[in-house]
Amino acid sequence: MLLELFESLEEKYSEMVDIRRHLHQHPELSFKEYKTAEYIANFYKELGIEVRTNVGGNGVVAKVVGGKPGQTVALRADFDALPIQDEKDVPYKSTVPGVMHACGHDGHTSTLLILAKVLHEMKDSIPGTVVFIHQHAEEYAPGGAISMIEDGCLDGVDAIFGTHLWAGDQTGTIQYRVGPIMAAADRFEITVQGAGGHGAQPHKTKDAVVTASQLVVNLQQIVSRKVNPVKSAVVSVGSFVAENAFNVIADTAKLIGTVRTFDEEVRTQVEEEIERIVKGTCYTNDSSYTYSFDRGYPAVVNHKAETEFLVDLARSVPGVTSVEEADLQMGGEDFAYYLQHVKGTFFFTGARPVNVDVPYPHHHPKFDFDEKAMLVASKTLGSAAINYLINNKVEAKIEA
Amino acid sequence: MLLELFESLEEKYSEMVDIRRHLHQHPELSFKEYKTAEYIANFYKELGIEVRTNVGGNGVVAKVVGGKPGQTVALRADFDALPIQDEKDVPYKSTVPGVMHACGHDGHTSTLLILAKVLHEMKDSIPGTVVFIHQHAEEYAPGGAISMIEDGCLDGVDAIFGTHLWAGDQTGTIQYRVGPIMAAADRFEITVQGAGGHGAQPHKTKDAVVTASQLVVNLQQIVSRKVNPVKSAVVSVGSFVAENAFNVIADTAKLIGTVRTFDEEVRTQVEEEIERIVKGTCYTNDSSYTYSFDRGYPAVVNHKAETEFLVDLARSVPGVTSVEEADLQMGGEDFAYYLQHVKGTFFFTGARPVNVDVPYPHHHPKFDFDEKAMLVASKTLGSAAINYLINNKVEAKIEA
Amino acid sequence: MLLELFESLEEKYSEMVDIRRHLHQHPELSFKEYKTAEYIANFYKELGIEVRTNVGGNGVVAKVVGGKPGQTVALRADFDALPIQDEKDVPYKSTVPGVMHACGHDGHTSTLLILAKVLHEMKDSIPGTVVFIHQHAEEYAPGGAISMIEDGCLDGVDAIFGTHLWAGDQTGTIQYRVGPIMAAADRFEITVQGAGGHGAQPHKTKDAVVTASQLVVNLQQIVSRKVNPVKSAVVSVGSFVAENAFNVIADTAKLIGTVRTFDEEVRTQVEEEIERIVKGTCYTNDSSYTYSFDRGYPAVVNHKAETEFLVDLARSVPGVTSVEEADLQMGGEDFAYYLQHVKGTFFFTGARPVNVDVPYPHHHPKFDFDEKAMLVASKTLGSAAINYLINNKVEAKIEA
Amino acid sequence: MLLELFESLEEKYSEMVDIRRHLHQHPELSFKEYKTAEYIANFYKELGIEVRTNVGGNGVVAKVVGGKPGQTVALRADFDALPIQDEKDVPYKSTVPGVMHACGHDGHTSTLLILAKVLHEMKDSIPGTVVFIHQHAEEYAPGGAISMIEDGCLDGVDAIFGTHLWAGDQTGTIQYRVGPIMAAADRFEITVQGAGGHGAQPHKTKDAVVTASQLVVNLQQIVSRKVNPVKSAVVSVGSFVAENAFNVIADTAKLIGTVRTFDEEVRTQVEEEIERIVKGTCYTNDSSYTYSFDRGYPAVVNHKAETEFLVDLARSVPGVTSVEEADLQMGGEDFAYYLQHVKGTFFFTGARPVNVDVPYPHHHPKFDFDEKAMLVASKTLGSAAINYLINNKVEAKIEA
Repeated sequence: MLLELFESLEEKYSEMVDIRRHLHQHPELSFKEYKTAEYIANFYKELGIEVRTNVGGNGVVAKVVGGKPGQTVALRADFDALPIQDEKDVPYKSTVPGVMHACGHDGHTSTLLILAKVLHEMKDSIPGTVVFIHQHAEEYAPGGAISMIEDGCLDGVDAIFGTHLWAGDQTGTIQYRVGPIMAAADRFEITVQGAGGHGAQPHKTKDAVVTASQLVVNLQQIVSRKVNPVKSAVVSVGSFVAENAFNVIADTAKLIGTVRTFDEEVRTQVEEEIERIVKGTCYTNDSSYTYSFDRGYPAVVNHKAETEFLVDLARSVPGVTSVEEADLQMGGEDFAYYLQHVKGTFFFTGARPVNVDVPYPHHHPKFDFDEKAMLVASKTLGSAAINYLINNKVEAKIEA
Repeated sequence: MLLELFESLEEKYSEMVDIRRHLHQHPELSFKEYKTAEYIANFYKELGIEVRTNVGGNGVVAKVVGGKPGQTVALRADFDALPIQDEKDVPYKSTVPGVMHACGHDGHTSTLLILAKVLHEMKDSIPGTVVFIHQHAEEYAPGGAISMIEDGCLDGVDAIFGTHLWAGDQTGTIQYRVGPIMAAADRFEITVQGAGGHGAQPHKTKDAVVTASQLVVNLQQIVSRKVNPVKSAVVSVGSFVAENAFNVIADTAKLIGTVRTFDEEVRTQVEEEIERIVKGTCYTNDSSYTYSFDRGYPAVVNHKAETEFLVDLARSVPGVTSVEEADLQMGGEDFAYYLQHVKGTFFFTGARPVNVDVPYPHHHPKFDFDEKAMLVASKTLGSAAINYLINNKVEAKIEA
Repeated sequence: MLLELFESLEEKYSEMVDIRRHLHQHPELSFKEYKTAEYIANFYKELGIEVRTNVGGNGVVAKVVGGKPGQTVALRADFDALPIQDEKDVPYKSTVPGVMHACGHDGHTSTLLILAKVLHEMKDSIPGTVVFIHQHAEEYAPGGAISMIEDGCLDGVDAIFGTHLWAGDQTGTIQYRVGPIMAAADRFEITVQGAGGHGAQPHKTKDAVVTASQLVVNLQQIVSRKVNPVKSAVVSVGSFVAENAFNVIADTAKLIGTVRTFDEEVRTQVEEEIERIVKGTCYTNDSSYTYSFDRGYPAVVNHKAETEFLVDLARSVPGVTSVEEADLQMGGEDFAYYLQHVKGTFFFTGARPVNVDVPYPHHHPKFDFDEKAMLVASKTLGSAAINYLINNKVEAKIEA
Repeated sequence: MLLELFESLEEKYSEMVDIRRHLHQHPELSFKEYKTAEYIANFYKELGIEVRTNVGGNGVVAKVVGGKPGQTVALRADFDALPIQDEKDVPYKSTVPGVMHACGHDGHTSTLLILAKVLHEMKDSIPGTVVFIHQHAEEYAPGGAISMIEDGCLDGVDAIFGTHLWAGDQTGTIQYRVGPIMAAADRFEITVQGAGGHGAQPHKTKDAVVTASQLVVNLQQIVSRKVNPVKSAVVSVGSFVAENAFNVIADTAKLIGTVRTFDEEVRTQVEEEIERIVKGTCYTNDSSYTYSFDRGYPAVVNHKAETEFLVDLARSVPGVTSVEEADLQMGGEDFAYYLQHVKGTFFFTGARPVNVDVPYPHHHPKFDFDEKAMLVASKTLGSAAINYLINNKVEAKIEA
């Protein structure tokens, strides 16, 4: 069955490229992906595949029910673009000023559509159901995953798999990681409220610049002293603003920053440590403060069994030349939410453009990826779906 | 002779008030005091007093040559106004929108004009010469004093006296101080140049927010450890700006601040200590910097003999009820430059409005002062001029 | 062959316990393990096994040459004790005041001796050679491993395996880790040289307490900003001494601390960053310094293939109930040096005392471990040796 | 009458020298000055002057009642020595090992004794009473002044004068200062209580070295930001001790330091600010603390009228060549307590050894002073006593 899958996907590779290029030319921003959603839905409708639209917003969910009984596996692709001006010089360049598929979501979508088409053709022999989750708004918190889940996209789903095309690694590379793979990305904001005054009379003031500066220095200790050194965390103050005349002492100073963690316990610890340090430092300086910690996407935490399962099958996928453990990635992904509800794994599919020394990074105006990687991604996701359903069918029988 | 002086001044008090109110209604900004200069010059011309205009800019210098030989003493009054909207409800309120005599320079000018008129009437008995320096642009660095001095306003002058009406102290109070009385007020600007990047990857950056924060903390040591504790100094960072997105690490941070000192050695020490700390802190953080230290007016440093001379005579001036040592004042004054060239002293003349609980401070939109203080100021300055010439005449004889 | 191995070890378990208890009663400090070394050597001599003594100091190396040609695999056990007073209440308590096997090296030794005895009995069927490295002085840098390697203990060795009994985990647990498993443990010493003086006259001094305090604060940034957040590092200042009278300003301050890393690049980076920060902070404070960074054992970095090989075989060892990935351990081990010369892996063998809620930690005066764990360790090490030789024999043939 | 005083003192100069040298050879430590007190008392007894011993300890108080009615003026000299080994090579070197008059109290005593002898001879013409306060234990807190005052040494006293021979200034110099002249010298002690642990596991500890280091850095702000910049204050941490092994994280750190101020309000402010900063910094680090602030002598604050009175009369004292305003002195003196009870002033009498480039400072093993300064001191104190009594007699008449 896998052989049939791989051959069918290869046959349809040029269609995959066409779809990707069409999407690339017509990008839409997060939460505004109306035409993209319609395009996806139409694709399924034309094939006679069951499809539900407006799932939790602009989300689209299609379903291929196999000819044999079995479990349900979901595959996910996101389809929103970014507020970036496309600066590439290619025929399929974005036609929308200031909007661009600069992260590969066009490729994710195309990959999933063609895979669905193939599995639909093979459905009689599939022992279970495959759900295709086309998610809107991955790039912009709170993201589309939460609302799609609330709207039922995971109902009845036993496991989920997703991938991100990764321009940094060569095509043929699959990167996995058991446990955390992408970070929780949170935002904090601190306002130090002192008491301003004349720069020549510090004793009549509570100098917010000094207080906030101490605070920045003190925050370094969270990572250096408070977090378990074998766990990763980052606390960065990106913005420090206390703009005044030269001879004035600042009334307030505003700090804004980000926290990255891979573990919910560490995440909560950092949130609390920041507050302790803010409170203590402001007390030290007889000043007051406001503090907010706004949680972004949680860490993407892969399930062990499903990840090991993926590692095993990936080694047998034609075109996969290397299956490697990924480093922890500091970026965020709302795939994290799916994994809080069902088992599964998220992996990276190498997609480095050929004939390029240093590829442009994701979110760059000249970003592009090797389209051949879509084939690798579709084969790997397809193999995951079929193997998962077969494995679980077998087990089901044994249990029976 | 002093009795005659005091009586004449009292007789002309209402004229003094009229002139002050005229000037108050027609304020002009620093370096743009064209009509005020003309008004002053005309006053002298009508009296037949020798006057020189456009001295170092809009400055006006008049001279009353006494009937007897002797030394030359200068008296100085400044005449520029401030970019402040007058919010007082009085008949003599400013008629110029957004411009106001909010520091009492109108009173200084009126005081000096009437004093000149009286001394001109008494000139036959005066053993020497009195120079009346009407200075433009005291409020705005580089100020008018420097250019007036360069243009000869102190040529032949043996000593100089000046006063500031002071709304914080009761009329009748004279405040003196031997040595420093008002601060040198300097400005510094530091740009920390790190290397920005993504907030999640601090190890690839040189975090300018952290470096500049350390710097602010380290600068505290100049005053706490480096400056002689029995000398006064202030180092305040008024502005700290590194404005970025929350998930970015800052490339640069800009600090702007002020330094106040009373002693040239300490001033230079602070300028150098800031640089050492900037350099060391940036080295610590593998970052670079720019640093500039822009000197404002130097400290007003009163000469001892002339100050003690003033203290003695002030006690005999009718209307003076208290002669007190002033606290060090953190504000700046370009009278400082005159005292670098000739001996003399600068003092405060109490001018607190009556029937007011807490007077509005200088530079406040509702600032006003007790006009009776002008009489005290004119008597004190006049007494200083006459006594100085008499004292020095006597000595001259003894020497002969 | 493995079945024979496991059964023989089980039969000799009581002997293993006897040896361990004998050693436990006669502990010797690092570099002074004369009688222990003699005891080990005699054990081999009595069995007629080839043994070399005084290898790189008190080290003992024995060799069982199999009856068939093949590669050479080494197994290592350390045998020094600690300067701790045994406070346990057991019959086999230490008889040497102030010296105690408080880390389990007695168990390591006993495990290896009995394993050697069994393999010696089985030698005819072994395709290759097994080297038994009994290492002195693991507890005290520079340790015994370096000198034993220099003295040839690894000559001809193709792979090495070692384990540590681990009282924190249940008997039956094997913990492995690919790549770094135990930290590089280094020591640094910084002396800040300021200029002392009277506490009332800070401006005449260079305050070493302030400088060193800034330094401690600044050092926090190495981990928080400079080291890649997905890599682990610890920089701790353990000792800060500037002892003076209350009214004196310190001339010097001395800081001593430790650095833990798992990656040579990070280790070197930290060493260099400390120096940069020391240099910059001392410049900031116009002071000088001395800095030394003394490298202890490097990180124990397991080889991937040998670790995966161990994981596979451990799952088949009778008595092993769980094979888990270990967390990074911040402690050091000079097993690190062997792995810099030959391939291999170091793992933890659970040895938690039964009927105990919270076991005493290693190096505690009441430390003890579950002796059954020695059986697990001997089976696992033995299985590793035999499997390794068999596996590589096969390959050898294929190559031929 | 002053002429007589000055001549008599000059006649008795060699006796003054003899007494000083006798005392110099027989120094006694603070609170143990038994023989010195006996020597002083005998001196008075032999002259038939009323004397009281054991005043508040080893204190001695003599009284010369003048022949005419009037007020009472007190003169004070301290007489304890220091625990320093005399290293001078002079005939009058200390004969007591490890004890030395290294601060000039021997000179103070001799000055006062001879002055008393002269005034006793002149007593018939003196309009009032002169009290001679010979104070023990000035060098060692709580000092002798407090207990002597409690024991009545100031009873009936209208004003007090005292001086310190000052080896740094030339003989002939009198240094006065209105208001504060010598500092309040206080001591503080802070213990930071964290939670120790292994240097490799900071997250399980509360690192007292880091907390105390932050604390030292934060304390700098008291002087730089909190104290009025025109007032002087010093906060110095002299001792920082957290002595541990290199691989341990500190449980506690102990800071000891000194505070110098000239104003009770500032003194209290600093005491409170330290506590705020300690509390806030420990909160920031989740640690606890103990803090004590032990007040030493308060600032010596001279009364204005008495100081100006002294300045005037000093200018007429033969041998006085310069009367100068003193800089604030950071050292402490328990003369402060007398001035809290009665009006008066404390001044410095220049006593710089001749033929010396740089004199040894007070408290140095080779300290010495110019004995001629004793004559200047006795004339100035004597003139102060007589003038004071005469001035106040006259006023009394006028009032009558």
